[in-house]
Amino acid sequence: METNTAAIQTVDNGVNVEALLGAREALTEAPAAAEFIWCANSEWVNGTHTRASVKGFHGLGEEQCHRTEFTFDSDHPEVFASDDNGATPVEYVLVGLAGCLTAGVASVAQNRAIQLRRVSATIEGSMDLQGILGIDSDVRNGFDDVTVRFDIDADATREEIEALVAQSQKRSAVFDIITNPTQVNVQVGG
Amino acid sequence: METNTAAIQTVDNGVNVEALLGAREALTEAPAAAEFIWCANSEWVNGTHTRASVKGFHGLGEEQCHRTEFTFDSDHPEVFASDDNGATPVEYVLVGLAGCLTAGVASVAQNRAIQLRRVSATIEGSMDLQGILGIDSDVRNGFDDVTVRFDIDADATREEIEALVAQSQKRSAVFDIITNPTQVNVQVGG
Repeated sequence: METNTAAIQTVDNGVNVEALLGAREALTEAPAAAEFIWCANSEWVNGTHTRASVKGFHGLGEEQCHRTEFTFDSDHPEVFASDDNGATPVEYVLVGLAGCLTAGVASVAQNRAIQLRRVSATIEGSMDLQGILGIDSDVRNGFDDVTVRFDIDADATREEIEALVAQSQKRSAVFDIITNPTQVNVQVGG
Repeated sequence: METNTAAIQTVDNGVNVEALLGAREALTEAPAAAEFIWCANSEWVNGTHTRASVKGFHGLGEEQCHRTEFTFDSDHPEVFASDDNGATPVEYVLVGLAGCLTAGVASVAQNRAIQLRRVSATIEGSMDLQGILGIDSDVRNGFDDVTVRFDIDADATREEIEALVAQSQKRSAVFDIITNPTQVNVQVGG
């Protein structure tokens, strides 16, 4: 194990694995602290253009806050007769998947003492618009399927790199959200 | 029907419903043009920080392009021992859901001659971190559930507003992506 420890010390992917392992230990003792609520607030701008903001969330038993507020414009493109003031809503889902799987690859690589040099990904979601346009009720509204292609340069064999990606999928929140059903409750206030 | 036509003419939510109905007609005739592919490209920056970009997509039988490239930083927050250089990947999913349902409300309202004044939403996704941390294999990685609370000010009865929201859900791509399973294929190139 000494060799592995030495390797971990020289490998730096910018992930604080010790803190994550510490968090896992702490939350095993206090599972209520592991209950998080993520949040976004949105305001309609005009047409299909909406602006959402992300700042606060709940976790570790209290209200938490990002260092800054992040704002995101979503819209439909000009081919849908819209103004294209932002990425489409479905592209935001792909961005989330990219970020989630890549963060997982970096974290697992750090834990396995694998130095990463580059991790790039292309994420594609195919969609038959006959669904959302209501042309064919047998066509779903969302993606038919999603493909993620990773290109990874690291001090590791191809097998080790494939194992990194597999482990990242296994622990990815967004991968789970897309591949498995989640209940969404929509309420109208006022 | 004359009354309705007159009302549609005075109602302006910024959605070109005529163009959307025209697109539905055109795509009914040429279903291959309805096959879209949405795309994001990502590059790992450091640690859990990833930058994704959205620009090109495929649809109407050819390559399409947004007016500009949109870039998005995702990261984990400081309570995860990360640098909080962007929204978390799961928050991007909530942003997509907000944008999708709100664009749907605006489009359906236009089609039903309902003038909107304000559409705001709060979207929350609850998540037990025991999943992604690997503490309890019975806990899923993604959201336990998602709640969307709309606050809508419009020239309409409460029933009409609730019907707008219901119809928007029925045609929402991101609502479908979250509530139903989608195959995600992850490949490693090189």
